Amino acid sequence: MKENKGLLIVISGPSGVGKGTICKCLLERNDGLSLSVSATTRAPRDEDVDGVTYFFKTVDEFKAMIEKGEFFEWAVYNKNYYGTPAPPVLESLEKGKDIILEIDVQGALNVKPRFPQGVYVFVAPPDMETLRERLRGRGSESAEQISNRIAAADGEMAKRFEYDYIVVNDNLDNAVADVEAIIRAEKLRTERMAKKSEN
Amino acid sequence: MKENKGLLIVISGPSGVGKGTICKCLLERNDGLSLSVSATTRAPRDEDVDGVTYFFKTVDEFKAMIEKGEFFEWAVYNKNYYGTPAPPVLESLEKGKDIILEIDVQGALNVKPRFPQGVYVFVAPPDMETLRERLRGRGSESAEQISNRIAAADGEMAKRFEYDYIVVNDNLDNAVADVEAIIRAEKLRTERMAKKSEN
Repeated sequence: MKENKGLLIVISGPSGVGKGTICKCLLERNDGLSLSVSATTRAPRDEDVDGVTYFFKTVDEFKAMIEKGEFFEWAVYNKNYYGTPAPPVLESLEKGKDIILEIDVQGALNVKPRFPQGVYVFVAPPDMETLRERLRGRGSESAEQISNRIAAADGEMAKRFEYDYIVVNDNLDNAVADVEAIIRAEKLRTERMAKKSEN
Repeated sequence: MKENKGLLIVISGPSGVGKGTICKCLLERNDGLSLSVSATTRAPRDEDVDGVTYFFKTVDEFKAMIEKGEFFEWAVYNKNYYGTPAPPVLESLEKGKDIILEIDVQGALNVKPRFPQGVYVFVAPPDMETLRERLRGRGSESAEQISNRIAAADGEMAKRFEYDYIVVNDNLDNAVADVEAIIRAEKLRTERMAKKSEN
């Protein structure tokens, strides 16, 4: 019986909901998982490592990738380009590796029609006030950026029903275990098991 | 936020595949789960407890239950009636309890159209020879019953694609953990989370 193709697990939700922390824990606890690395034209911060946190590109390089159709999705935030390069994701999946894609709501819903066989997980806050508190507590952003993110959060929450699963992040360990259960269960779905036995 | 309704988890598969042992472990390890108790007209065996292993009924009592439409499904095996009474299952689900229904393939596929919102798990053997060995090793049945079950197994295996999930029972602990992951993940599915937030 040949190995099944890998799973693309999309972890999404409003800013401040803790999806980055969940993904970090998932990667630490599961050797078989790796993270999709985005490309961006924004300036690297101190903690950034090219090819690990992002692929850092010039605007010209990024535009060339757009023209070659290399992105699952791309967008502009705060005058910087951000995008998910498709070729490395597809190559990993073909090799049977599972890939985590951490992405905002707009990005996830742009990927979904292009890759409906992915598993789309919406990370929700326990309540909206908790989310606002978390956003206000962030040190890396201007007051304007924070207030934009708070304004966006209500609209993003309304999109949660377009996902396959909703994980409420009221406790990090529980939320990580929820995503692990989702990954384990998705691999047992009859469609995927059927594909496996055809190979 | 009101508690969601319970989940009906149907654990099915050919005789000898180990579904009874999997269910026993699931119940031992998960306080929130309980087992659907079948009704039967067969004679109790030494280990049977009325209302726990089965509800033991006379043929007349069983037929009266059929006429009142009280069964999810019923069938005759070896001249005995067996059936799954619907009312106790529906009551438990309404209270938010999760119910495990251990049932053969024919029975499961009769329940499915009547309760499509259930979660249908097919337990498969690692290979057919292992299954035949397990059936031959059973002490409680005649040679004819065993050979009937072996003959039925191929047809039952072909029905596995009508289930939501396929769990291969090559290791009991893994198979139980697979079903636990399925239950956990199913509770996070957007349809169920949406129903929950409507209540």
